Amino acid sequence: MHQHTVAGTGSDGIRQALRARWRRRSFVCVGLDSAFDRLPESVRRKSADMGEAIVEFNREIVEATHECAAAYKPNAAFYEQHGAIGVQALIETVQYIKNKYPDIPVILDAKRGDIGNTNAGYARSAFDVIGVDAITLHPYLGSEALRPFLDRVDRGLFILVKTSNPGAGEFQDLPFGPDQRPFYEHVAETVAERWNGNGNCGVVVGAPYPDALRTVRGIVGDLPILVPGIGAQGGELQATIEAGRDSEGFGMVVNAARSIIFASSEADYAEAAAVAAERLNTSIGDIVG
Amino acid sequence: MHQHTVAGTGSDGIRQALRARWRRRSFVCVGLDSAFDRLPESVRRKSADMGEAIVEFNREIVEATHECAAAYKPNAAFYEQHGAIGVQALIETVQYIKNKYPDIPVILDAKRGDIGNTNAGYARSAFDVIGVDAITLHPYLGSEALRPFLDRVDRGLFILVKTSNPGAGEFQDLPFGPDQRPFYEHVAETVAERWNGNGNCGVVVGAPYPDALRTVRGIVGDLPILVPGIGAQGGELQATIEAGRDSEGFGMVVNAARSIIFASSEADYAEAAAVAAERLNTSIGDIVG
Repeated sequence: MHQHTVAGTGSDGIRQALRARWRRRSFVCVGLDSAFDRLPESVRRKSADMGEAIVEFNREIVEATHECAAAYKPNAAFYEQHGAIGVQALIETVQYIKNKYPDIPVILDAKRGDIGNTNAGYARSAFDVIGVDAITLHPYLGSEALRPFLDRVDRGLFILVKTSNPGAGEFQDLPFGPDQRPFYEHVAETVAERWNGNGNCGVVVGAPYPDALRTVRGIVGDLPILVPGIGAQGGELQATIEAGRDSEGFGMVVNAARSIIFASSEADYAEAAAVAAERLNTSIGDIVG
Repeated sequence: MHQHTVAGTGSDGIRQALRARWRRRSFVCVGLDSAFDRLPESVRRKSADMGEAIVEFNREIVEATHECAAAYKPNAAFYEQHGAIGVQALIETVQYIKNKYPDIPVILDAKRGDIGNTNAGYARSAFDVIGVDAITLHPYLGSEALRPFLDRVDRGLFILVKTSNPGAGEFQDLPFGPDQRPFYEHVAETVAERWNGNGNCGVVVGAPYPDALRTVRGIVGDLPILVPGIGAQGGELQATIEAGRDSEGFGMVVNAARSIIFASSEADYAEAAAVAAERLNTSIGDIVG
């Protein structure tokens, strides 16, 4: 069992850990969506097996980006699609980051959510076996089912509110209650007002929906908001940050994956990732001010 | 890559495969929630490692229950909590079942749900690497995101509608729309009327909610309904089957896990599982008529 606690452990741990990164002007969440078939050929060839290639690639990406990284966010699907070898590569990647850069939070984008007994297993998997600091979760089964996650006061939980996909609104935008607000607002309010007793909750709102981001920020106060789906364009970035900033001026986990880790498909991928991450970090910093 | 198709492949494949099992009066879905620390000590001691013990246990359970099994349903969490070894044990378990009993559908209870690109990875993991016939999914991101699953016409998808946990209603029961029906009814209707173009959808409704089960059956017609959370009591079983039966008299995947696989914690666990599964199968058969 791999055991650790995030910087600023205890209640509010993930928020404090992220704040420490933002204060040193490290703003970028680097999405480690490192599917083997997307890796540069030089990495795929050099390594003895698929798992080794993935870990090697992630190590190089981490070394190239850790200065501007507010967090790392591996998505479980891209590892699970390679079976047990992929899962082992995920574990080794997280261990590498937490050993070398213990102050940088690692968020497992796994979008889990089951009944309580089963969530206890998922929480063990994420926090004790893989060893991440935070995880993304579905709200559908309610807080009673999520209790094994909510009770982990030293870890962070990002609950899906408004996702980044084009069809996110099919259920999330359905009008609800006396004032006919969209369902996702109700989820955001529930998380902020009722689920966050241990101070370990955040929410997920996709960058393509700046209006939703502004509304959710108004609802959740200074809870951290994980924002996937940002493009490379400064305009979109500006709209996102203006809509989602908290009382301290930022408060968001702005994730970029492919635009950083696959910035080059050649042997210079790490240098290209460093450049892409630094460029995004500077852009965010300029807007944050 | 492990490749296969379910019995009665193509559109409607999972439903046809289940029907073939029901017709031969095999009614029980055996939940393979085989967490290592819950295995009989005799199994834990005998095996060289954790993964081998889990696979050995599952093999014995399958051999003891396959006559009355309509389906097997491993829950991913109980394997993932053991890291890569657990995932490998899950893969070997599914391969064992599909090689030896190809007519018995295997449903991965994984409750996945992400954006489209990521769901493609989860679909590969479930259907091509682990090799199951069906998977459970969250509805929250909508059909556009679930497209990589919906497009797998030869596999089955069970969408969460009303889950079995005590707090399921926190969001699922929220009143919606002009007639103020609970949200889960809206999800059921959407799945049945809009998502099932490839005939590969089913829904999940927990046994503790027979009224919801009756309502959902009225909404989804003869779509298969996965029913977790059944107890050992005949009364509850009777209420469940009466509420959920389809036009052919059953149409449900009634899951029992711990009451079968952990019926004995001694070396006679397989015999005890056989007895428990057969008893439940007879009880269901008596009610189905």
